[in-house]
Amino acid sequence: MKQKLKMGMVGGGQGAFIGAVHRMAAALDGEIELVCGAFSSSPEKARASGRDLGIDCSRNYESYQTMFRAEAELPENERMDFVAIVTPNHMHFPVASAALLAGFHVISDKPATLNLYEAKQLRELVKETGLLFGLTHTYTGYPMVKEARQLISEGKLGPLRKVIVEYTQGWLSEPAGSDNKQAAWRTNPAMSGASGCMGDIGSHAANLAEYICGSHIHSVCAELTTFVPDRLLDDDGMVLMKMGEGIKGILHASQVAAGEENNLTVRVYGEKGGLEWQQQEPNTLVLKPQVGPMQVYRTGGAHSAMAAANTRTPMGHPEGYLEAFANIYRNFSAAVRAHAIDGCNEPAAFDYPGIEDGVRGMALIESLVASNASDQKWFEIQE
Amino acid sequence: MKQKLKMGMVGGGQGAFIGAVHRMAAALDGEIELVCGAFSSSPEKARASGRDLGIDCSRNYESYQTMFRAEAELPENERMDFVAIVTPNHMHFPVASAALLAGFHVISDKPATLNLYEAKQLRELVKETGLLFGLTHTYTGYPMVKEARQLISEGKLGPLRKVIVEYTQGWLSEPAGSDNKQAAWRTNPAMSGASGCMGDIGSHAANLAEYICGSHIHSVCAELTTFVPDRLLDDDGMVLMKMGEGIKGILHASQVAAGEENNLTVRVYGEKGGLEWQQQEPNTLVLKPQVGPMQVYRTGGAHSAMAAANTRTPMGHPEGYLEAFANIYRNFSAAVRAHAIDGCNEPAAFDYPGIEDGVRGMALIESLVASNASDQKWFEIQE
Amino acid sequence: MKQKLKMGMVGGGQGAFIGAVHRMAAALDGEIELVCGAFSSSPEKARASGRDLGIDCSRNYESYQTMFRAEAELPENERMDFVAIVTPNHMHFPVASAALLAGFHVISDKPATLNLYEAKQLRELVKETGLLFGLTHTYTGYPMVKEARQLISEGKLGPLRKVIVEYTQGWLSEPAGSDNKQAAWRTNPAMSGASGCMGDIGSHAANLAEYICGSHIHSVCAELTTFVPDRLLDDDGMVLMKMGEGIKGILHASQVAAGEENNLTVRVYGEKGGLEWQQQEPNTLVLKPQVGPMQVYRTGGAHSAMAAANTRTPMGHPEGYLEAFANIYRNFSAAVRAHAIDGCNEPAAFDYPGIEDGVRGMALIESLVASNASDQKWFEIQE
Amino acid sequence: MKQKLKMGMVGGGQGAFIGAVHRMAAALDGEIELVCGAFSSSPEKARASGRDLGIDCSRNYESYQTMFRAEAELPENERMDFVAIVTPNHMHFPVASAALLAGFHVISDKPATLNLYEAKQLRELVKETGLLFGLTHTYTGYPMVKEARQLISEGKLGPLRKVIVEYTQGWLSEPAGSDNKQAAWRTNPAMSGASGCMGDIGSHAANLAEYICGSHIHSVCAELTTFVPDRLLDDDGMVLMKMGEGIKGILHASQVAAGEENNLTVRVYGEKGGLEWQQQEPNTLVLKPQVGPMQVYRTGGAHSAMAAANTRTPMGHPEGYLEAFANIYRNFSAAVRAHAIDGCNEPAAFDYPGIEDGVRGMALIESLVASNASDQKWFEIQE
Repeated sequence: MKQKLKMGMVGGGQGAFIGAVHRMAAALDGEIELVCGAFSSSPEKARASGRDLGIDCSRNYESYQTMFRAEAELPENERMDFVAIVTPNHMHFPVASAALLAGFHVISDKPATLNLYEAKQLRELVKETGLLFGLTHTYTGYPMVKEARQLISEGKLGPLRKVIVEYTQGWLSEPAGSDNKQAAWRTNPAMSGASGCMGDIGSHAANLAEYICGSHIHSVCAELTTFVPDRLLDDDGMVLMKMGEGIKGILHASQVAAGEENNLTVRVYGEKGGLEWQQQEPNTLVLKPQVGPMQVYRTGGAHSAMAAANTRTPMGHPEGYLEAFANIYRNFSAAVRAHAIDGCNEPAAFDYPGIEDGVRGMALIESLVASNASDQKWFEIQE
Repeated sequence: MKQKLKMGMVGGGQGAFIGAVHRMAAALDGEIELVCGAFSSSPEKARASGRDLGIDCSRNYESYQTMFRAEAELPENERMDFVAIVTPNHMHFPVASAALLAGFHVISDKPATLNLYEAKQLRELVKETGLLFGLTHTYTGYPMVKEARQLISEGKLGPLRKVIVEYTQGWLSEPAGSDNKQAAWRTNPAMSGASGCMGDIGSHAANLAEYICGSHIHSVCAELTTFVPDRLLDDDGMVLMKMGEGIKGILHASQVAAGEENNLTVRVYGEKGGLEWQQQEPNTLVLKPQVGPMQVYRTGGAHSAMAAANTRTPMGHPEGYLEAFANIYRNFSAAVRAHAIDGCNEPAAFDYPGIEDGVRGMALIESLVASNASDQKWFEIQE
Repeated sequence: MKQKLKMGMVGGGQGAFIGAVHRMAAALDGEIELVCGAFSSSPEKARASGRDLGIDCSRNYESYQTMFRAEAELPENERMDFVAIVTPNHMHFPVASAALLAGFHVISDKPATLNLYEAKQLRELVKETGLLFGLTHTYTGYPMVKEARQLISEGKLGPLRKVIVEYTQGWLSEPAGSDNKQAAWRTNPAMSGASGCMGDIGSHAANLAEYICGSHIHSVCAELTTFVPDRLLDDDGMVLMKMGEGIKGILHASQVAAGEENNLTVRVYGEKGGLEWQQQEPNTLVLKPQVGPMQVYRTGGAHSAMAAANTRTPMGHPEGYLEAFANIYRNFSAAVRAHAIDGCNEPAAFDYPGIEDGVRGMALIESLVASNASDQKWFEIQE
Repeated sequence: MKQKLKMGMVGGGQGAFIGAVHRMAAALDGEIELVCGAFSSSPEKARASGRDLGIDCSRNYESYQTMFRAEAELPENERMDFVAIVTPNHMHFPVASAALLAGFHVISDKPATLNLYEAKQLRELVKETGLLFGLTHTYTGYPMVKEARQLISEGKLGPLRKVIVEYTQGWLSEPAGSDNKQAAWRTNPAMSGASGCMGDIGSHAANLAEYICGSHIHSVCAELTTFVPDRLLDDDGMVLMKMGEGIKGILHASQVAAGEENNLTVRVYGEKGGLEWQQQEPNTLVLKPQVGPMQVYRTGGAHSAMAAANTRTPMGHPEGYLEAFANIYRNFSAAVRAHAIDGCNEPAAFDYPGIEDGVRGMALIESLVASNASDQKWFEIQE
């Protein structure tokens, strides 16, 4: 009999958005159960939130510190196996560090930390503890994204030349009211970090491009803009970029593209063809060979084993955002189970984003901010 | 603290398809837990399947009869709250009847029964017991289907004139190998019923059209075909139909539309405009007013409360088949919780398909078969 | 030096729609010049219309009878080479007959005549005179329709099973005002014929299906409806149909599908795959093999010589309705030039619709009307 | 009686591409006739090409110099009214200058000249002669582009913030064979100018963005690349840009985006919403209001008078590239007719691109080349 993994959660209490997404993603496959949590920085709200979620009273903690201490003292077969961190950005590092030090694997919402310095510290800690760290760059969880990565790695496009990745939203087109909790912390540098738009969604776009291309961004030329008056962070960014192997590209992210929903799109061109994927119709991957008709790959009819392994239903039964998110959880869970046996700590082997993605993401964000402030055209990313 | 509902399952063991879908749908929202099951008609396979699923040994039953008896004897706060039936069609009625007689609510895969006679008997039993019966006509669970229903009920299209509903698949284009369990029972009259294609998917299409239009099919003119040699049931059906309020329409279903995945599409036209929804891109609903630009409604930006209540994520985060399925479970669960308080048994109040949908579906299937055999153009549906 | 062909026109004066389309289609390739016309049944309006069009005064005729007589008397290298008939339906036969008897080739708008009896008479006349008769079933002029025909004839779909063809418009959703000339004659049996919707657009849909499949409709089961009160002809039709080689299908046409523009769509399924073409995005042809990714064929990247020969611009330069119409004219013109040399009269050799299409179309229309009036399910088409 | 305008042509002989497009565009509406030409720089090929086109022997000239001289001596009602220039870029300026000096209006393919210096000289000449100069930036001829311009000018999007314009092709993905005449001159600096990709198609994209937004690009940050070895000019360009009124944007053009056809796409965002248009499906314009459902505007159902005036057929009859091109010709023709009456020389009044577009285009191209060579991030465009 296969036992469910036991998950704890920090953050994600009443009024939060991403916490519920993590819980649904973790629940979907019936392999993980939420056993404990410290759901808010306010002890009162933490307790109330846990009650709503049906968490057992004794494991409905008032702070993450208490939780890690108490769980660590439980018998091994009762205590949580890993913790999911779904707080605003500024708490990612303190919570993740504490969890690792207390002996727990961590799966964290992105970005990994508030800044590059923290990210590098966290990387050290992951190495030292030998524990697992997963980062929910959700969009790499889609089957057709994996298919794209596979087609490219097989050389279907030939050597790559260009990548165009865009992530446009319109929800911050106007000054956010004080009652919009999501908007409030995301536009607050103390909680969000040095960049607004690029930290929140530009980093997703960059991670997606790197994952699909199997190559890293090394130089950027960035123009960040704050369109909405009195906002403290950028709400729009346009970036020219250079990646390994001579690939050039454009990264565009905006939170003020009024009328857009969550329009993450990536196109890649090589010597022999191009491909295109759009997150809002995620079950379709268009391959455009230089010669011959376009080909439309579809979830459920996947060409690659990696895509097939991340699909739950037959062709024509659309899978969505929660399924992609659940793939990150499922792959991370497989790593947790394997770690218990062999201590292996290698995200790539289980196909989920890890601390290296996190460090690279933070380095990118800081480089974009620096490039934006500079008159020089190209800026090399430094870790 | 909100307690999870306890679900039992009949069918859905190793090698089955729809059982896993039911389990994921039930798990998604964290409000239902699978506590027991009789997962196969083979006791051995039933036990093995339950073990795979992590079912407690004592509630991993060898037959549904045993399960209902044993569960009924458990203390009220331990025993299952309802049972999900995910067997082939011929077992729907015996299992559902036994469950109701043992005092358990039932949520069943469709069609409700093997034939109309059973369906009417089942309806009697539901009435007599006062228990709940839900039928997983999944496609009515999509938010944009609910939006369509709402827009029509508000008169956005004016009085309706036409409905075109189609459900095309290609997976049975060739004779199925004997190792294809899904194909095997679906093309076997003893397990599937009087119709193959129309029973399996035509009934979904009809239910969808009726749900959206708020009107029932009363007459049909059907041409059913078995394209694949030696197949015992129809694998294709084309139907002209008449509905209440003078609506006319076309229902087309095929399992031999080679190259199609799971292409369920509905279009409705009224005096003032039309609308279109496609299951394979389910988050988009196109409204075509007679005057002015087309309008594209999207999941997450829903106009109607009913659509909003069946959505989990913000605009641009695509929801899919499992989420639609989970909506049926969530709405049925709400009814189960309410029934515990007030004994109310009214599917429409909780927006899930019930026994009346089931009876109507079986009447339709039998009428299609009769119409197909007749030289007369129009055939009135009789319950 | 290649001389332009000289075209005369009957009908198409001020206020008409299709006459201008014919003139643009004929002009596009610079191989045809409009030299004369009798542009209206009203002599006054005929003269005024000709003046607007810059027609030489001496060849701006007051009636088609005068025109045919006068043109026949001109020297061979001055007189018109063929006449385009763009009147309402009831005048097609008298004008075409007179033209053929006067020795002129004819290209006519569809349907060929007002009824089947006339169509058969016209066929006799075409045979007797040995002259050319072209029928502007425009939609077969699209390159991707020709590509579809070619792919099917090559067996890319295997033996065919199903065809679904639909032509939906919304422009007659409401009673037409008396000032709408297009609507007025189309809903008048004396000018339009026995059927409204099926004669006007259902016949296009049928011709398209037959052209693509290379097979003819032989039996129909029709339900025609007049949704708009006081209208004298059907404005909607739903048809089950049987074609040669065991193909079955659905033909649906409507002028009251409110919100639709000119939505002609065809899907064909065979044992090995399906294909889909939509007139409103005419440069895309989707091939859905049963195995492997969908393939998207595009105008300009045509696989077949026939499609390539009917394309004017490179890939990605969209061609439209006028180009499709011009292809009919160009192919008809090639036949006219060839006829001058060898007297050949074989539409298929030059890939334009001819009198046989016309007769079949009229037989279909009359059969649909008869089937609609009958209680019997299937009705065999009789010429 | 309305007389046809008489057109001459320079270039566009056998083997050329764009000459045939100009001829079809000019012919479509039956208001222009091609009366003379000097179709090649080779006298022999010029004569042969003219013969193919059915040009009268006496006006089938061996050089443009001869043509302008001879035509100028013809009686006013016989001589050509304007000349169309369809040569490679390096000949645009000499031919246009000679035509203006000989007293003829000019419509020229783009870019206006080989470099900015010539463009400014040409502007002087246009002013001095008071004659008309039209530049075939085809894409502004599409009805839905005009609709977009109109919606923006009415404030439907609010004050603009962002524009993303892209023009990707794949046809130069590989080194072009020496037999590819189109590729040969486009990759030859002596005939094409200082930039390959940006001159050929980037300039179209920029013109489209400026036309729709009603605002001009003033600063650029460009990265131009030559991906194909041994090619002498850029085949790819990525540009960050700033326009008037604080608008920022991205311009991306590529001739090596393997698998792309002629993918020109523009998106514009303002405070209140966004819009999107794609040249490959040109009859659809998507408006995305920040609040409420997306709206789909369609050719034939145009909201604006300017779009309606540039449409030939009812909704659902797709118009394409040649129709857009014909709109430039039709609007230019209207200006020619008006000039004959009042001498007015104001392209904007007749809605066709003129010499100011040409000068701006050349200034942009030179600035992009300079920016690319510079280490500085932003480069201000200088005329």
